[in-house]
Amino acid sequence: MTPKTLHDLPTPSLVLDRAKLARNIRRMEEACARNGVALRPHLKTAKSIDVARMVLGEQTKGIAVSTLCEAEYFAGHGIRDIQYAVCITPDKLERVAAIQATGAKVALITDNANVARAIADKHGQIDTTFHVQIEVDCGENRTGVLPGSDQVTEIARILYAAPNVDFDGVMTHAGHSYACRSLQEIEALAEAERLAAVTAAEAVRALGIECRTVSVGSTPTALHARNLDGITETRAGVYMFGDVFQAQILSCTLDDLAVSVLTDVSSHRPDLNHLTVDAGALALSKDRSTEKVANDVGFGLVGDVAGKVIVPQLIVERVYQEHGLVPMCEGQRLEDYPIGRRLRIYPNHVCMTVAMYDRYYVVDSETGNGTDIVAVWSRVNGW
Amino acid sequence: MTPKTLHDLPTPSLVLDRAKLARNIRRMEEACARNGVALRPHLKTAKSIDVARMVLGEQTKGIAVSTLCEAEYFAGHGIRDIQYAVCITPDKLERVAAIQATGAKVALITDNANVARAIADKHGQIDTTFHVQIEVDCGENRTGVLPGSDQVTEIARILYAAPNVDFDGVMTHAGHSYACRSLQEIEALAEAERLAAVTAAEAVRALGIECRTVSVGSTPTALHARNLDGITETRAGVYMFGDVFQAQILSCTLDDLAVSVLTDVSSHRPDLNHLTVDAGALALSKDRSTEKVANDVGFGLVGDVAGKVIVPQLIVERVYQEHGLVPMCEGQRLEDYPIGRRLRIYPNHVCMTVAMYDRYYVVDSETGNGTDIVAVWSRVNGW
Repeated sequence: MTPKTLHDLPTPSLVLDRAKLARNIRRMEEACARNGVALRPHLKTAKSIDVARMVLGEQTKGIAVSTLCEAEYFAGHGIRDIQYAVCITPDKLERVAAIQATGAKVALITDNANVARAIADKHGQIDTTFHVQIEVDCGENRTGVLPGSDQVTEIARILYAAPNVDFDGVMTHAGHSYACRSLQEIEALAEAERLAAVTAAEAVRALGIECRTVSVGSTPTALHARNLDGITETRAGVYMFGDVFQAQILSCTLDDLAVSVLTDVSSHRPDLNHLTVDAGALALSKDRSTEKVANDVGFGLVGDVAGKVIVPQLIVERVYQEHGLVPMCEGQRLEDYPIGRRLRIYPNHVCMTVAMYDRYYVVDSETGNGTDIVAVWSRVNGW
Repeated sequence: MTPKTLHDLPTPSLVLDRAKLARNIRRMEEACARNGVALRPHLKTAKSIDVARMVLGEQTKGIAVSTLCEAEYFAGHGIRDIQYAVCITPDKLERVAAIQATGAKVALITDNANVARAIADKHGQIDTTFHVQIEVDCGENRTGVLPGSDQVTEIARILYAAPNVDFDGVMTHAGHSYACRSLQEIEALAEAERLAAVTAAEAVRALGIECRTVSVGSTPTALHARNLDGITETRAGVYMFGDVFQAQILSCTLDDLAVSVLTDVSSHRPDLNHLTVDAGALALSKDRSTEKVANDVGFGLVGDVAGKVIVPQLIVERVYQEHGLVPMCEGQRLEDYPIGRRLRIYPNHVCMTVAMYDRYYVVDSETGNGTDIVAVWSRVNGW
């Protein structure tokens, strides 16, 4: 039987509200238009061609991905401009070439001169042109070369000289924007992100080497940057769906959360005044991002089957592999949550949660009643 | 190309050492034999018919599972005695009946009289006999009825009276054994677990109702129980693989860890003296179990490609979606970890980590060199 409403689905299942997704996409497009910059949507969260079709538009140029599996999947669905935004390792180059042989361009990134040389060394061995960008660190302290360092020019020279390489430009990612708690902080970081990328690009150009792409981005900085002069594109991903953590770091509001986990009440403990739901650590993930913000929602915030947050204090406090434990908060009574009652849990960090599912059950809270299933969309997982 | 060794695999990939798995299985079998109790292996961690075939033997009776997906998968592979060890919700009963129609018995559990009535109410609607156990709480404070409570007898009476129900017995799970830090504590908890189950069973028998199954179990209590009088079977799952957390709560040693994540060094930051690997939050999970024990390994302990732990201080300290960050510890130098070097990361909590993969690449550190792939085993994920 094809499920018609959320009441027909097995639990746990993944629910995506198309109306909220559309609104989130619009908000980011407006932010990019304000800054006169192209958007390269990062599909590492959604991993879905159906979402990609909604997100790609006039304002966008190509996509970013975080795994070669995603690159293969999206190239297979006809997307031709892909940035693989994780440092390439030489043993992945054959697979990149195979994707490019289907007609897609896969831009690679590296922060290492030895890797640049290893790519150059594939000349004559792998029959493709590798498009390569230099990853710059704008303060996240994870990967990337420092924008003013000799490494920028060293790597650019190696790549530019290699006959099998199209030197594509520079990119950076202000992932540390997740630690910001005010618009002022995010705006300052967006400017630091811009400066790092532009500084590296200018260093490359000073060598007489063209620096086509100057790419920045993270959801907070892409939304709140006030000036992106010198930047050719901004990348962001989690903005499409939002999550409880993003709502608390000013990327969206709780009303914008497009993804939730459908679950059933499965047990009552009147003596302890809690219930369990059949969405646990695997269904929600063990991410605890909201531990770091004002309103800690444990492992998720509880909504009703139509997606409405019940009260902000009703949360999944503990998780076990297949159990989520929800203590009753003030004003909530176990009697109102009979076993089998369907709920929707909004996760801390949606990128982690969606990774456990192979499909989205799509509802629409604007054109529909929020519980009718209007589509089933695919996802790709793995590496 | 069929991968012949770990060097041929894409990264990240999941690696299972068959020799260590076999040793872990033997250790648990010996513990159960010592206590004269049958073992019901919990396949919620392994989720693999190939692992099930190794673990099922003379000492075992059937399996336990944590999702209906697992029940369907194992029934489809011919396993006939399955306990679905998570509280049943009424909307799942049709699916249970469909599995039973293929010839398997799926024992259900509940801690709720309303659910017992809902099962009884399916008489005449769903053409199957439901095998149902009462879940008892032995102190975990999650699900289950208290062993001496009226709920035990109330639920037993409802189930016993229902023409479509085979009342199967009682079960409990000492999940709080994970909080124990000494053998003495675990032994005491194993005795509390036994007593809870036996007390509930006796309450049922006092009604004149047969209580066939008296089921207990968790990896720590199953391994260290000193007396299981009155118990018909013990369940355990994570013991098969082990993980860094289990090694610290006395379930195994670091040398017993059968599962690791194969990864490549992907970036160097000489200025920060760290490297990144291409196994991040999705490849390892965000589980932080070892935060609670003496040796916190962050998100995983680093081993070499043959599986040998390099030094206990070399750990994945931070994770991002596809990056794991490994600071160099004393005695370790970045030069020894060139980009592309393969490593194997031992996870905190293996149940969470393996859930991200659809297969195990099997090596054998006793009969083989620990890097040749001797088999590829399937896994089932989802619900």
